[in-house]
Amino acid sequence: MKNGYNIGISFEGSKITKLGKGVPSHEFPKAELPKTKSLPKVKLIYTGGTIGSKLDYKTGGVYMLLKPEELLYEVPELAGIADIEVEPLFSISSEDMSYHEWQKIAERVAEARKEGFRGVVVTIGTDTMHYASAALSFMLNGIGMPVVLTGAQRSSDRGSSDAFMNLYCSVVLAAKSDIAEVGICMHKNSSDDECGFILGTRARKMHTSRRDAFRPINSEYIATVSYKGEIKYGKSNYRKLNGEKQAALKTGFDKKVALIKAYPNSDPEIISHYAEKGYKGIIIEGTGLGHTPVSTEHEGYSWLPEIKKAVEKGVIVGMTSQCLYGRVNPNVYRNLRLLSGSGVVYCEDMLPETAYVKLGWLLGNFKSADAKRMLSKNVAGELKDRSLYEEFLE
Amino acid sequence: MKNGYNIGISFEGSKITKLGKGVPSHEFPKAELPKTKSLPKVKLIYTGGTIGSKLDYKTGGVYMLLKPEELLYEVPELAGIADIEVEPLFSISSEDMSYHEWQKIAERVAEARKEGFRGVVVTIGTDTMHYASAALSFMLNGIGMPVVLTGAQRSSDRGSSDAFMNLYCSVVLAAKSDIAEVGICMHKNSSDDECGFILGTRARKMHTSRRDAFRPINSEYIATVSYKGEIKYGKSNYRKLNGEKQAALKTGFDKKVALIKAYPNSDPEIISHYAEKGYKGIIIEGTGLGHTPVSTEHEGYSWLPEIKKAVEKGVIVGMTSQCLYGRVNPNVYRNLRLLSGSGVVYCEDMLPETAYVKLGWLLGNFKSADAKRMLSKNVAGELKDRSLYEEFLE
Repeated sequence: MKNGYNIGISFEGSKITKLGKGVPSHEFPKAELPKTKSLPKVKLIYTGGTIGSKLDYKTGGVYMLLKPEELLYEVPELAGIADIEVEPLFSISSEDMSYHEWQKIAERVAEARKEGFRGVVVTIGTDTMHYASAALSFMLNGIGMPVVLTGAQRSSDRGSSDAFMNLYCSVVLAAKSDIAEVGICMHKNSSDDECGFILGTRARKMHTSRRDAFRPINSEYIATVSYKGEIKYGKSNYRKLNGEKQAALKTGFDKKVALIKAYPNSDPEIISHYAEKGYKGIIIEGTGLGHTPVSTEHEGYSWLPEIKKAVEKGVIVGMTSQCLYGRVNPNVYRNLRLLSGSGVVYCEDMLPETAYVKLGWLLGNFKSADAKRMLSKNVAGELKDRSLYEEFLE
Repeated sequence: MKNGYNIGISFEGSKITKLGKGVPSHEFPKAELPKTKSLPKVKLIYTGGTIGSKLDYKTGGVYMLLKPEELLYEVPELAGIADIEVEPLFSISSEDMSYHEWQKIAERVAEARKEGFRGVVVTIGTDTMHYASAALSFMLNGIGMPVVLTGAQRSSDRGSSDAFMNLYCSVVLAAKSDIAEVGICMHKNSSDDECGFILGTRARKMHTSRRDAFRPINSEYIATVSYKGEIKYGKSNYRKLNGEKQAALKTGFDKKVALIKAYPNSDPEIISHYAEKGYKGIIIEGTGLGHTPVSTEHEGYSWLPEIKKAVEKGVIVGMTSQCLYGRVNPNVYRNLRLLSGSGVVYCEDMLPETAYVKLGWLLGNFKSADAKRMLSKNVAGELKDRSLYEEFLE
C-alpha cells in the first residue's frame, strides 16, 4: 500500500499443506560474506537499536540479532559496493544512550580512520540518534571522511522495514561520497526510493513512527542517495574528503548541562535549582525569537533575575527557540534586549538539542570563558549567519 | 520579492522635493467606522502583541497602537463583512501572557456569546498564541461559535506585514463560518493569498519569523480563507455553530504543573524537585514513542524510580513526544511498558504544550483522579485514536 504496509488477504476457503519443518530465521545457516578486497573499505559499527532487532514469530517478542552480520546478508546489493568490516561495539537502546557511548563510538571511528577505512557507518537507535550525531559531529570535528549514522523505524522482519535501504544508502555514502562530515542517512520520503543525508548538527527526529521522520532543520539535505546507488549533492557547502589519516578527536563531555523550556506560567526558580546543583550550563528553549516571561506583574514570574544570578555565578546560559525552525534574535523587542543584556548567549539558528550537546562538549574540552565564546560561533555546521527561506518543513 | 520583502532602489541621481509637512501615522485624523448594523455582529478583543504595534519612524522604536480601532482603518474590506465591536482588554506581550490573561479573555468571550455576538476574534501576541489557544479551547469548550485567535509576525507598518490579511480572514471566519471551535487563523503560506484555521489544541508556532509559522500538528487545517473571503472547509470534523446563547465556561487553572524534557544524560531528580515543591502534575517530553532513559548501567540515570515515587505521591505524570508529530505508544518496546506500568499517562497524539495546558486546566477544575482519567481522553480535539498519514509537516 501507499504507506508501506502490506495488505492482508482473507484466507477463507484456502487450504494449508505442510511442506516440511521450518527453522527460525536466526538459525538459518549463513554463507560467508563475499570477498570484496578491491572495493573501498568501510567500517560498520553496530551499537543497537531497532535496526538490529527482529521479531521472533515463535514468541511474538522482539529480540536483538545474535550476529550483526545478519543484517548484511539481507542486503546482497552491498556486495559490489564496499569491503565491509562489521564491528559490534555494544547493543544499547536509543533511550539509554549517554555520552559514555558517544565517546566510545567516537574513539572507534577515529581509530577506523587511522586504520585506513574510507568511511564509517554507525547503526544506532533512532530516538536519540540526532543527539548522538550532534555529539559525534563535535567530538570528531574535521574527521576528514564520511561518518554516516543510520537506523530503522521498523524492525527488519517487517515488510515495511526501512532497515535495508537505510543501510544500503549509508554504505554507498561511506564508500563513494566525498562528504567528510558526520551525518544521518535515513529515508527521505515514505517510498523506498531514496535516502537523505543530513548534517549531524542539523538533524531532528520529527515523527514518532514514520520512516521519513528525520529532517534537516534550518538546513538542506547535503545529498540524496537512490536505492540504485546514485548520489546527488544538494546546494549546501560541506567539507570534502581528504587523504589525511590523522583524525581529530575531542571526546570530553560535561554532563552538568541542562536543557529546559520556558513557557507561560513557568517558574524560573529552575535556573537557581540547577545553578545550586553545580550545573555549569543551561540551554533554554525560549518562545519565538528567544523569549522567556519577564513581566514583573505576576510576582515571581520574571526569568530575568534568576538568569542574571546564574550568569553572575559563572553558569553559561544559552537561548534557543522551541519553534525549532528559524533563528533567535535579541534585537527585535525590548524584552529580548533585556534578556540579552543579562548575559544570555543567543544561539542563532541552532537546534535546542544541538545547543545542549554542544555546550556539554564545550565544557568538557575547553575553559568556561572559551566555551561561552564558542557557543555562538560555528564549529561543525550547527550555526550559520543567514537563514535560507526554503529551509522550512522540508 | 518572493519572500514578501520590498526591493530597495538606488537613489543616486534622484532629487528630493519637499511638498509639505507630514504627520506621524498615529496622529492621522480618523474617520468613524462605517455603520454596518445589518451585518453579523463580531467582537474583536484586543490583548496586545505585534499585530497592535507600529514602528514610529521618528524614533525608530516600536510603539503600541493608541487605539486598537486603528487596525480596522487599514482593512477597509472588512466594512462589508461584519458589524465589528472593538474591545481593548489589555496590552500584554506574548511572552508575558499567563493563565490570568487566558482567564480574562475566556470570560470576555463567554460574555460576548451571551450578548449575542456571532463570533469573536482575539488579537494576541504570537509567541505563546498556541498555549493560549489550547487554554481557551478547554476553558470555552462547547462555546458554540467561532473564536478566532490571530496576530502578526511583522508589525503593521511593514510592507510585508501579515496583520491585515490575518485580521481580515479571522473576521470572515467569525462572521460567516459555521465552525464552533476555538482556533488560530494565520497565513497558510508565504503569499498574501490565504489563511488557514487550525484547531486551538493542535496549533504550534514552528518558525521564529515566517508569516506562515503556525502549523497544524497531527491534524489538518479545519478551513482555509482566501483574501477574497472564500471559506473552504477541509476533510476534518469540527463542531458546528448552534443557536444557543449559553456559553460553557470553566476557567480554573492550576499553575503547579511543569513541562520538562527527557534527553540523553538528563538527571531525573528534576521529578522529585517538582514533587517536593508541591507540583501536582508533570508533562514529560520524551524521545520517540515516549521514552526516557531507564538504564541502570550509569548510576542515577534511570527515570523509572523517580517517576514511580512521584506517581505514588499523587503527582500526575503525562508522557508526550518531543518529535511533536506522531503519537506515543507504550506497547512497542519493553522499556516503554515499564514506564507505562509505573503509572505514567501516555498522551496519545497530543502536543506537549497542549498536554501541559490541559493538565493545568484539568487540575484547576476537577478532582485529581478525574484529571488523571481525562488527561488521555479527548476533551477539545486535542487527541484522537487514529493518526492520518498525511498529517506531517503540512
